[in-house]
Amino acid sequence: MITPWNISGSVDYAKFIKEFGIKRIDNLLKERLMKHVRELHYMLIRNYFFSHRDFNVALSDYENKRGFFLYTGRGPSGPMHIGHLVPLVFTKWLQEKFGVNLYIEITDDEKFLIKQDMKWDDTQKYSYENILDIIAVGFNPKKTFIFKDSEYIKNVYPLLLKVAKKITFSTAKAVFGFTDSSNIGIIHYPAYQVLPTFFEKKRCVIPAAIDQDPYWRIQRDVAESLGYYKTAAIHSKFLPPLSGIEGKMSSSFAETAIWFSDDEKNVRNKINKYAFSGGKANIEEHRKFGGNPDIDVSYQWLSIFFEPDDNKLKQIHNDYKSGKLLSGELKQILIEKINKFLSVHKEKREKAKNIINEFMYNSELAKEMWKKQF
Amino acid sequence: MITPWNISGSVDYAKFIKEFGIKRIDNLLKERLMKHVRELHYMLIRNYFFSHRDFNVALSDYENKRGFFLYTGRGPSGPMHIGHLVPLVFTKWLQEKFGVNLYIEITDDEKFLIKQDMKWDDTQKYSYENILDIIAVGFNPKKTFIFKDSEYIKNVYPLLLKVAKKITFSTAKAVFGFTDSSNIGIIHYPAYQVLPTFFEKKRCVIPAAIDQDPYWRIQRDVAESLGYYKTAAIHSKFLPPLSGIEGKMSSSFAETAIWFSDDEKNVRNKINKYAFSGGKANIEEHRKFGGNPDIDVSYQWLSIFFEPDDNKLKQIHNDYKSGKLLSGELKQILIEKINKFLSVHKEKREKAKNIINEFMYNSELAKEMWKKQF
Repeated sequence: MITPWNISGSVDYAKFIKEFGIKRIDNLLKERLMKHVRELHYMLIRNYFFSHRDFNVALSDYENKRGFFLYTGRGPSGPMHIGHLVPLVFTKWLQEKFGVNLYIEITDDEKFLIKQDMKWDDTQKYSYENILDIIAVGFNPKKTFIFKDSEYIKNVYPLLLKVAKKITFSTAKAVFGFTDSSNIGIIHYPAYQVLPTFFEKKRCVIPAAIDQDPYWRIQRDVAESLGYYKTAAIHSKFLPPLSGIEGKMSSSFAETAIWFSDDEKNVRNKINKYAFSGGKANIEEHRKFGGNPDIDVSYQWLSIFFEPDDNKLKQIHNDYKSGKLLSGELKQILIEKINKFLSVHKEKREKAKNIINEFMYNSELAKEMWKKQF
Repeated sequence: MITPWNISGSVDYAKFIKEFGIKRIDNLLKERLMKHVRELHYMLIRNYFFSHRDFNVALSDYENKRGFFLYTGRGPSGPMHIGHLVPLVFTKWLQEKFGVNLYIEITDDEKFLIKQDMKWDDTQKYSYENILDIIAVGFNPKKTFIFKDSEYIKNVYPLLLKVAKKITFSTAKAVFGFTDSSNIGIIHYPAYQVLPTFFEKKRCVIPAAIDQDPYWRIQRDVAESLGYYKTAAIHSKFLPPLSGIEGKMSSSFAETAIWFSDDEKNVRNKINKYAFSGGKANIEEHRKFGGNPDIDVSYQWLSIFFEPDDNKLKQIHNDYKSGKLLSGELKQILIEKINKFLSVHKEKREKAKNIINEFMYNSELAKEMWKKQF
């Protein structure tokens, strides 16, 4: 059973598509998208964003001038790692290309409720820290509203009740795997994650990892009876942990993730020590038989996030496969990319401190949202 | 199973005491109370308020100068009838005698969630109407804060999450009878009804009908681990419907309740037509054998609410039992009492419109509460 709190082991994405009743992002959809964006994002080209619900319908809405809006979120359970950032980078691209509003929900309530040992004050500290990392991605402050569930609750409570009234325990249990020992707060929480899909009377498009899809299934069950549109969604795969291409980079295994707080030395040591290699046992064999990029985490990370240039990536792929590029050299390429990225990110994150209030309270969009009562 | 949403048929109050593990309000407690209030309220003398949890401990707190505070509430599911008012009148007496703060929760969320056909706008309309009726009871505006759950949510959400995190579905199911078809909103709701017991760092005393006790059992399970006091409670019986002394006056049977909107004629007709009588089949038999006040709703209503004077009530009791007072005459006494009460209530209710904002937003206490973040 796949729930938002339970991903481990090998992930069969084809099975997701079948069991969730979602659609692969096929060439037809990519071509249609191309008309609007001119160049496809490399995460689409490389099928990291691989499936969707009604994204084609959202494109029709856009073509018909009704438009759509974007919504994504972050659970502030701790510091952020690179796996958290990947869908946000893609979201930023969508925002830029379509010029649409984006709502980012910081689910401080969810993380407090689901993590037995989490203290409330910690969720607040992490919320602030995480929002800085999110802003560093470069969203348009005029078109992006970032809110904490605990702060925005007053504006949404009546609508939250309307959503909650439509979801039975039976449904929540089936979709999220709740049991008798689940607390009544987390059982109620799914209503809040559904809610931002109703922030505008347009179709919502949600770029997020596939494990969040259960919420959107619920949303699509209740949306129309509440007078709103069924949401669209566009799903990413998971960024694999350093330890191997199966599973999902997880905060629970700190050493197999790259954190925004990691320094250069830290990154180098982690990649050299933990990044699962598709190379051969020794240089001679590697030169002779070549490496396997498909199972090599360093190569996969370059492909998913750190090498946007298709030609350069192809070169790396071929050199590695032919044995020309050694495992250590491949790791070195990744280390440099990560450290460059982190250095830029840290600068942007510092600057985010000056504009965090724009995103949360002071922009035109934020002010409008704080006046709204749903 | 007794839950806050399910009372019907004959009510065995002795069984409540045994099954809920609560205590009868005995003479010892009444004597102790007398030291502070000089005269006991007739609802105590006549055992309409009949049982309690830790009310003796709250009295100790009062004697030790730590003090306590009062909390009660109203679910705005429709207009109010006299049955809703009775515990409020007693609450007002406690507030006066002890000079303590009182918090009145208007559970607009609960009623919306539990009543399948209830519209949100109706809960808001009834909230306003009900609050006027509540204010008409005569609470001290300087010491009474009336709030709607939907409005006050922002101030309490983090504490609400802390409460909800401590209550498992298993507990909620056992206490409130939730099932797979319960919606996730109502499953979460008990946390909010528990919450106002934490408004002050003193012991809370809750005067309410016995069917609300399940919430206080939950409160007492979680309070100390959250750093608060276990609440005390003082329980009333139910005001019987006109149709007979069993059960509870209910909005679902409009004709067997007296509404604040009823006019004089209406009251006369209802009492004459529906008030179950303990009198005999005809005047001759009644004069000979007398009536039975124990099953006579008119007499019971006088006893519970409309005839505070013990001597007068005793006279009525004896005259009725001896056959001197006829059923029609007894009904006439009640009709006059009700109509006098309603006429005064309507005046007070009109005046309440001018001070509703005091209770909800503008008094010192209200302003302090709106500044608090729990």
